Parts: sequence; structure tokens; C-alpha cells
Amino acid sequence: MRVRLTPSALLLSISRNMKIPQTSSRLGKVPASPIRKLVPFASAAKKQGIKVYHLNIGDPDIKTPEVMLDVLRNWTRNPVGYGQSQGEPEFLASLESYYAKIGYGFIKTKDIQVTTGGSEAISMALFAVCEEGDEVIVFEPFYTNYNSYAAVNSVKLVPVKTEGSTGFHLPQKSEIESKITSKTKALIICNPSNPTGTVYTKEEMDTLAEIAKRHGLFLISDEVYREFVYDGKKHVSILEYMEDIPEQAILLDSLSKRYSLCGARLGMLISMNRGVMDGALRVAQGRLSSGLVDQSMAAKLTEVEDSYFEEVHKEYQSRRDILYEGLKSIPGVFLEKPEGAFYTIVKLPVKDSEHFCQWLLTDFRHNNETVMIAPAAGFYATPGLGGDEVRIAYVLNGHDLTKAIEILRQALVEYKG
Amino acid sequence: MRVRLTPSALLLSISRNMKIPQTSSRLGKVPASPIRKLVPFASAAKKQGIKVYHLNIGDPDIKTPEVMLDVLRNWTRNPVGYGQSQGEPEFLASLESYYAKIGYGFIKTKDIQVTTGGSEAISMALFAVCEEGDEVIVFEPFYTNYNSYAAVNSVKLVPVKTEGSTGFHLPQKSEIESKITSKTKALIICNPSNPTGTVYTKEEMDTLAEIAKRHGLFLISDEVYREFVYDGKKHVSILEYMEDIPEQAILLDSLSKRYSLCGARLGMLISMNRGVMDGALRVAQGRLSSGLVDQSMAAKLTEVEDSYFEEVHKEYQSRRDILYEGLKSIPGVFLEKPEGAFYTIVKLPVKDSEHFCQWLLTDFRHNNETVMIAPAAGFYATPGLGGDEVRIAYVLNGHDLTKAIEILRQALVEYKG
Repeated sequence: MRVRLTPSALLLSISRNMKIPQTSSRLGKVPASPIRKLVPFASAAKKQGIKVYHLNIGDPDIKTPEVMLDVLRNWTRNPVGYGQSQGEPEFLASLESYYAKIGYGFIKTKDIQVTTGGSEAISMALFAVCEEGDEVIVFEPFYTNYNSYAAVNSVKLVPVKTEGSTGFHLPQKSEIESKITSKTKALIICNPSNPTGTVYTKEEMDTLAEIAKRHGLFLISDEVYREFVYDGKKHVSILEYMEDIPEQAILLDSLSKRYSLCGARLGMLISMNRGVMDGALRVAQGRLSSGLVDQSMAAKLTEVEDSYFEEVHKEYQSRRDILYEGLKSIPGVFLEKPEGAFYTIVKLPVKDSEHFCQWLLTDFRHNNETVMIAPAAGFYATPGLGGDEVRIAYVLNGHDLTKAIEILRQALVEYKG
Repeated sequence: MRVRLTPSALLLSISRNMKIPQTSSRLGKVPASPIRKLVPFASAAKKQGIKVYHLNIGDPDIKTPEVMLDVLRNWTRNPVGYGQSQGEPEFLASLESYYAKIGYGFIKTKDIQVTTGGSEAISMALFAVCEEGDEVIVFEPFYTNYNSYAAVNSVKLVPVKTEGSTGFHLPQKSEIESKITSKTKALIICNPSNPTGTVYTKEEMDTLAEIAKRHGLFLISDEVYREFVYDGKKHVSILEYMEDIPEQAILLDSLSKRYSLCGARLGMLISMNRGVMDGALRVAQGRLSSGLVDQSMAAKLTEVEDSYFEEVHKEYQSRRDILYEGLKSIPGVFLEKPEGAFYTIVKLPVKDSEHFCQWLLTDFRHNNETVMIAPAAGFYATPGLGGDEVRIAYVLNGHDLTKAIEILRQALVEYKG
């Protein structure tokens, strides 16, 4: 409804318009998620009756362990009150036994801060180690939400470029060290890597620990995909360095992928640095607690049979093989064989992968189906990089994955972008 | 185990010690929660077999509606995958109908960002409206976690003092305006107030809206306790001003208290300012989603009978009466009758209320029982204020509340602090 303003109301309106406050410039620096920003186009396609294969987001189709869902089905606790700020005792105890089981019995409850998703652990870590304007070295392409949390915490990510041609493994030590300035406070690595699928070697992790020692930096390792390592390769956790550099090592972890619990927002920040942990707890007190129901479910992780993860591992290795063989048979497509996690960065024969990804949703149809993938530019900090790459999450079963690859093959034939 | 260092290892150790990185100064600025920092003393008392009545934290004993818990008991969705970043559609729809039911049908899904607890809504709001170092006017004593989020977001809280003798109502407009500087970006009010129990009048809300208009400020209203208003008083929501100052009004809300869902981490940030909402969504994308199970539970709020809240309301008004009558009969104790929420700030005949609160847990026992209350200093920004006050949350049933008051009466007789 349009109303006609009297002269005095008009004046009031004008004077009011002059006084409308602006949102902060830092809000403007938080990027839209490259994984999620094309969702409206996907929704529109679905409304037209198009089936969309989702390879854009690491939201697995693997079942959550039944022993966890049974916690919901047998729920009696009422009211659903706050949990403890550090984490619920039974959940913390289950985490302690998980780390003991994988060989790190020295990690005790006091070294663990439960976070609301691995996301909160990223944010807490950046806040804990950086002043505003400080720098963190990151290996690009990297997990896109590091960009979000860098913006939220006024931290500058300084990228060290890694190359598809070497499977995105780290460059020479000197190249990494050349990025260190007086403002550098930490190195952050995601191992196995989202988005590249790289599993870093013992030598690479040694190099990072040496750099951290020599330059007095924090070394932050995001190991959300720890168990997703293929071809018999061994994962080298920062936990192997934690007793050597106890003041510098920070582990970021999450249950989302390990137990297919993405919607239960639970992660962990782990360190032996008391200043980091005491500070993280104070931040955690400000937000009171993580979800009580989610933590009760997750505490059953000690009862999940080893066979659960063996199945999951086999399934992902098989998907990885289907994806790799399928994609490399498409003309003009380049990728190295991913070593872990369930992502890969793929070079496509297109000039603007964001345009291509959007076109897949808005224009392209193959037997009433299409595929959603994430343009890779948002996984880089250096402007201009990733423009001909996409990130693919292989989170569909083999049958659907095979279909999705064929759709992509057909799309690349038809695309004129 | 102490190891003897060889000279070279010693040198290495020294050189390493010189290179140990420091945590950030901003981490050091995040305060410990005054509500939670005495928890270790309470735990120690409980280990000695002492019963502790908890009046320190607003974690109600009221039952969560069964219709919500039934969602858990009938859970079939598997896997527990990510929710949508803005919020799950069914939960957003239930919120839209809640706001319509209380008279604000103009609030649509697009104006609502689901947050992980009201806590995340506070943080998002401060980040959205302030650059680093900007100022927000707050009425002290105020919700202590505003201090935490101010520190996390490098925002300066500028306190306007309110007085127990006037029931913590607002001072003159000119006194509020005198705090405005070129760095002031917003006013934040909690209505009904945690920790004072004050319900602000129409005139007070008008005044705040006028100040926001005249000076071009955001007006942020935290209405987590909207329904907890006693003696037939009317709550004046910022929603009544939202169409008048659509670019300036921001509502922070939460389900925690309304449906006794503290452990389901769900809140809302609501605004008609597109810049705020688009930015909040980008921040939300960085943390992927709020909990899926919690949102599924909460979406049943449309099926909660009106009688549920009528009962809750009656119960709290009765508790408020028990508390008020009980406390004011203790010599040297002062409080005005709280008008809403389920807190009150009480002046005690002690010099150092933090010492007193700790002593209650460590030294005082009355028939093997004691009481836990929160020292009030942490609810102030001005150093030195609140030192003889405590915040009491009346979240126990009438019987336990009566006992807790008698324990406090006895403690004040015995205390020599």
C-alpha cells in the first residue's frame, strides 16, 4: 500500500532516511557459501520436476548408527535443559575413549572443548590465536568456510598455492616460509583435505611442525575426515606431534562425517595449551552449551561397531574409484586420484565454472535430470584462481554417482559458455 | 616424569620456549561466566553429599511439551543430515505462525534467521551492526553474556545505569542520549529483563525508538522472556515498532524458556533490514546449520496447547511471589518486586557478594544443604558496581524455593565475610 505523505511527514521521512544506520563493513566481507549459494537455482529446477544429483555438499547418504538413533527413540529426560559449557560429561568421556582407541591415550577430558559443529571449533581457534588483522597461512584450495570464519574474526588468510598436477601436495618448505610475516600466528591444514582429497605425508606434517617450531606459530589441523583415507595410506594426525609441541598444536575435529551426524552439530577443539583451552571454555560459557540431545546421541560412539566404519570406508573407496575412473574418461577433464576425504577438485574444459554450475541447474537437462556441483573459486583466497575448477563431493551411492558423471559428460558436450 | 636435558637439548628447549606463541589479547578479554564460574565449588559440595539448590542459572525445571519429545520418540529420519542454513522450512513455518498468533502477521520467513540458541543471535546482531571498536548502549545490570559477545566481536558496551530503587526502569531520555558518541551503533534492551525482571513500559519503548530514530541507531530487543510477564502487565515488543523503523529494529528471540528447551539450541534473529538478514544468512552458511533434531522438535510449537503456557505462567507468578515475600522478610535484603522473566537482582547485607556466593558452596551448610546464586558484578560493565548484589533465578518449585530462601536467611546470619 502506498500512502501519500503530508509535507511534515515527508520531511520526517527524509530526515529519518538520512539517519538510517548501515550494517558493518565486516558483515559485508563474509562471503556467500559457494557450496550453498546456488541452492535457489537447484530448488527452482526441482519445482520444475527435474531430479538434481547433489555433488555440491558433503552431506553423506550413509546411515547414522542405529545405536545413536535409539537414544532418540528411548528419550525420557525432561526437561531438555542446558548441557555443560565444556561438553556433557558422558560425551566427553566417550571422546576420551575414542582418542585412546586410535592411539592417543594422553588426550584427556581437560584437553577437549566440545563445539557446536566443527565450524565453531574453527572460529574459536582463529579467535584464540589471532588479534584482529593477524595472518594465518592456509593451503589453497582450502575449505571454503575458513573464509567465512576469517571474515567473522577479522583474520587474514594468506594462501600458499598447491597444484592439481601434484595432487595438491605441499610445495617446498621455503615457499611456505616465504609467506611468514610478523603478523603470522598460525598455519592451518585440513588433513585429509576438503576440498582436494589430499592425504598429507609424514614428511609434510614434519615440515609443518618444524616451521611452527622455528617461527613460533600455532599449527592447527582440521581432521574431520581422519578415517577417510584410501589405498592403505596412513593418516598422520597432529596428535602425533601434540606432546612435542603441546603449546602450539591445535586439533579441530567433528563427528559429522565419521558417524554421518552432520545435522547433530558437534565438533571438538583439542589442545594441551591451557591458555587456549581456558579461553575456549570462556567463549563456550558465553553460548551456554552445545545441544543436549545431540550430545546424548553422540556419546554412544563407543558402542558403534568397528564393522560400521569398515563398511563406510569400503563404500567411499569404491565411490572414489567410480568417480575417478568416470571423470578422467571425460575429454578435457583433469583430476589426480583423491587419496582421502570424499571430495576432489576437478579441472573442467570451461572458462567460468560458476557460470557452468549455474547453467547446469537453470538450463541443462538430461532425461529430466541434472547435477549440482560447487564452483571452486570460493575455495581459493587468491582472486582469479579456481575459475575453471569445481569441487565434487562423492556422497552418492555408486549407481547415482555413475548417472551423475554421465550427466556431467553430456553437459560438457552441450555447454557453449 | 622429569628428564635431564643435555646441553644441546636444553638450548633447543630454551630457543623453543622463546618461540612459543601467545594466545590473543582478545581471548583474554572474554570473561568467565558469573553464572557458571562457581560450578566447580558446587560440584565439590555435591561430592561431599551436600544438596545444592540451584538459583544461579535460568535452566527451568518446567517440563518440555510432550508433543515435542514425541518427535524424538518417533524418529525415523536417517541419516541425521545438515539442515538448511537459514533454518529448516517446517521450523521457519512454525515460527511464522507463532508471530502471527501473537499479532505480528507481517513477520514472514524471509525476516527470520534461525540461530543456534539466542546466544548466536546476540553475536550475529553485534557483528552485523558494529565495526571493531564501535559502541552499543546497554542498561546495566544486563544479561552477562552480552559481555562475552561484546568481547568476541570487539564491541564496547557503554552502560547506562539503572537503579534497584526504581525497579531498574530506564532513566531520563537525556541521560541515555548523553552516552551517544560517533561510535554508537545500537541500543540493546532485554525485555522482560534478565537479570532484573523489569518489564519496560510503552513510554520507555517509545523513548528508545525515538532515540534510535533521532540518532540513526539500531534498536536491538532481546525478548526471550516475552511471555513471562506478571500481574496482568502488558509486554511491549519491538515488533510493535518494526514497521515504523524497519531498517533499525532487530529482535532477538529464543525458544529456550518459552518451551523449556534450553538444551535445544535454537533462537532467532528477526529484522526487516535486508542487509542485516542477508549478512546473517552468509554468517549462518559458514556454520552450515543449526541442529536438525532440535529444529524438528521445536517445529511442533504450533501444536503446544495454550494451557501449557497458562500453567507455566501461573507457576512462575506464584514462584515470584514466594521469592519476593521470602526475601524481603530477610533483614538487610533489598529488592523491588520483579515484573517479569524469572530473575531478580537482590541487594544483600554483604560487602563482597562473590565471596559470599563462593562461601555458600565451600563453607556453609544448613542440614547438609546449601544454595547456589550468581554474584551480580558480572552483570555490570561499570567496575565496582553490583559488588553487594546477587542475581537469583527462581526456577525451582515452590517447596524447594521456600527451602532455598530459608537457607539463604540462615547463611546471612552466619556469614562474617
